[in-house]
Amino acid sequence: MNLEDLILVSVDDHVIEPPDMFDGRVPAKYKDKAPRMIQREDGASAWVYEGAEITNVALNAVAGRPKEELGIEPTSLAELRPGCYDINARVKDMDANGVLGSMGFPSFVRFCGQVFMKTADKDQAQALVRAYNDWHIESWAGAYPGRFIPLALPMMWDAEATAKEVRRVAEKGCHAVTFSSNPYALGLPSLYTDYWDPMLKACADTGTVVCMHLGSSSQSPGTSPDAPIEVTYSLSPINLFEAAADIVWSPMLRKFPNLKVALSEGGTGWVPYFLERIDYIYQHTRPWTHTDLGGGRLPSQIFSEHVILCFIDDAVGIETRGHLNIDNITWECDYPHSDSTWPHSPETVIKYLGHLPDDEVDKITHRNAMKHFQYDPFSRVPRDQATVGALRRQAAGWDISLKPRAVQRERSSAHWLDIAKI
Amino acid sequence: MNLEDLILVSVDDHVIEPPDMFDGRVPAKYKDKAPRMIQREDGASAWVYEGAEITNVALNAVAGRPKEELGIEPTSLAELRPGCYDINARVKDMDANGVLGSMGFPSFVRFCGQVFMKTADKDQAQALVRAYNDWHIESWAGAYPGRFIPLALPMMWDAEATAKEVRRVAEKGCHAVTFSSNPYALGLPSLYTDYWDPMLKACADTGTVVCMHLGSSSQSPGTSPDAPIEVTYSLSPINLFEAAADIVWSPMLRKFPNLKVALSEGGTGWVPYFLERIDYIYQHTRPWTHTDLGGGRLPSQIFSEHVILCFIDDAVGIETRGHLNIDNITWECDYPHSDSTWPHSPETVIKYLGHLPDDEVDKITHRNAMKHFQYDPFSRVPRDQATVGALRRQAAGWDISLKPRAVQRERSSAHWLDIAKI
Repeated sequence: MNLEDLILVSVDDHVIEPPDMFDGRVPAKYKDKAPRMIQREDGASAWVYEGAEITNVALNAVAGRPKEELGIEPTSLAELRPGCYDINARVKDMDANGVLGSMGFPSFVRFCGQVFMKTADKDQAQALVRAYNDWHIESWAGAYPGRFIPLALPMMWDAEATAKEVRRVAEKGCHAVTFSSNPYALGLPSLYTDYWDPMLKACADTGTVVCMHLGSSSQSPGTSPDAPIEVTYSLSPINLFEAAADIVWSPMLRKFPNLKVALSEGGTGWVPYFLERIDYIYQHTRPWTHTDLGGGRLPSQIFSEHVILCFIDDAVGIETRGHLNIDNITWECDYPHSDSTWPHSPETVIKYLGHLPDDEVDKITHRNAMKHFQYDPFSRVPRDQATVGALRRQAAGWDISLKPRAVQRERSSAHWLDIAKI
Repeated sequence: MNLEDLILVSVDDHVIEPPDMFDGRVPAKYKDKAPRMIQREDGASAWVYEGAEITNVALNAVAGRPKEELGIEPTSLAELRPGCYDINARVKDMDANGVLGSMGFPSFVRFCGQVFMKTADKDQAQALVRAYNDWHIESWAGAYPGRFIPLALPMMWDAEATAKEVRRVAEKGCHAVTFSSNPYALGLPSLYTDYWDPMLKACADTGTVVCMHLGSSSQSPGTSPDAPIEVTYSLSPINLFEAAADIVWSPMLRKFPNLKVALSEGGTGWVPYFLERIDYIYQHTRPWTHTDLGGGRLPSQIFSEHVILCFIDDAVGIETRGHLNIDNITWECDYPHSDSTWPHSPETVIKYLGHLPDDEVDKITHRNAMKHFQYDPFSRVPRDQATVGALRRQAAGWDISLKPRAVQRERSSAHWLDIAKI
């Protein structure tokens, strides 16, 4: 496989919500209740909701910034590459990176909409989640047909309402829903209860993938308060290691045999070890715990059938893919977060996948994502226009050079600052 | 390599302390303060110390028990295989399993002697730790020269006293000390402080390996209270994943460049992924965190040089050993815990290692352990008498059949119950 011929679909990027996203989408009675963005005197952008200011509007949205300036979190939309929040600029950034398709996780509302969980008026909270999803499906993913995989927010406080929402958005072509990697950690019933059954059933019925993103338990792993930030980064996979255990040992997959779960930004290199371990545990404990996973199957088989993995930059996972289900490995770009390989994703991908058979490369880079998320880009973008080479040619001249924060602020003013002053 | 020719040294087994261990080893003034074992009316054995009863004397000491009876923790010494607590029977069990050498972690005092941490009279606590170590070195490991690697307890509440103890036991030929995988979790200073420097310096000076065993942080990983026991087992490597991060990112190895740390019962299959990840983090964060690990080295290189891994039953770790330092991989039997491969360890080892070059097999099975722990069995046991084949021939007729708890209790009475009634 040549770099130019790759077709890249990223199952994990991040939407930085623009200030006008709720305009015209909220029922009249809740119009004044919708989150609104303010530009503070200290220069920070903030969303205001229910009296609280959410200043991490653009936390970690650092694509295009020199590495020396990372760690200084963006405080203002004006300091971001427009591709973070502007769909037209986003598509250009995707083109320049040779990326055909993208699924975008939410930002200021948190990974599974935690921001709406404490709203006392549940009807209001539901209306806002629906408005968010409509904006995401129609104005974000819908702006460029064939270029985006839509992703819906759940209503974490209400599994029945979420079930209804999952069915509603599925009608609009959305087949992915964000969820928490550990609802118990959010103060909600665990996956060992029946509480989530209506939602899981709606997902199974509509072929909607339950996406658990790193960090969606709202818990940050650590060892001691004086440990440096590198420790937190080193331990970040732990949350999804825990989620993987719950997915296997909880009854959810026995209740809903068609269900698919994605471990978003979960990596792949730890999975062969995990699979070996869970089988060892099952064989050693089953005689006395009497746990029966059903169908005479091993936990590794159940995991491999139902769980979608993804890969940013992970040589070990590719090397040991013989232990994984090649039909469930996908790729992600993580734009615009600091782990992203943008704008050199094709060069990274070819480094790890270049020596694989074309069929395996195609599965990992796009065919698996297309199948699991019911995403059909080629009906809109002819296949020969969808390759890295074709997309990059289309973006010739688009500026992808690194921009220090101050320079970006200067440049953004023309593009964006008028809208941000609201 | 043939199974018969393997030479097996296990760097992680478990000593179940016998009731007479403190006899004649405690200074007169603390004689009445030493832990003592009682046989309760409900049939349980318990250690009594400072008014508290420790009933998990033999937690998980299930070697030789049918799998159906696991989970029913032993409550009495009489229900254990005598090899758990009796050194003569232990050596026979090792022979029958083809195991030449063994390092034994403590049981009722917990992995790093947590039981003595709360003792108000610190002089008393020190005297008891010294008595424990003397017993372990002289009566346990010393009973069969050439067959055991001694391992000392620290005095976790006092790094200076531990330094002195490390030097004292090194004089007696003991070059391993147990430690916590996260001292901060025990309410003590973290590895990011200078507090442990005296102890770490003593270890570096004497070539003593700091052994962090799974569970030595006294924290049990989990996701929710209603998750089954399989989840806890699945997540047990997390503690050592955390310890690995602290070892790499803390200043301990820069301060003491000769220091060696063992991740006891840590496994190997997750390490290649971990190493890839920490290098990625270092390269991505260094421009703004300004962390400098020194010597122009990558975190993976530092880890691989200083950290000793061990292997029970781990195909993935062996398959990906090209990412590991072959000189720091060791083997463990985990007798008499439920994860142990006893009495079929050679059959497990040959399954995973049989296809490796003899030199690699020898390093993993015994030569690395000999080097790191300054253990020289062949001066006592000629090499041709040290193989699986030779040891098993020596144990011909030794009963290794599975024994239900009730049968074991019956059989033990002759051997042991008279001593246990104290």
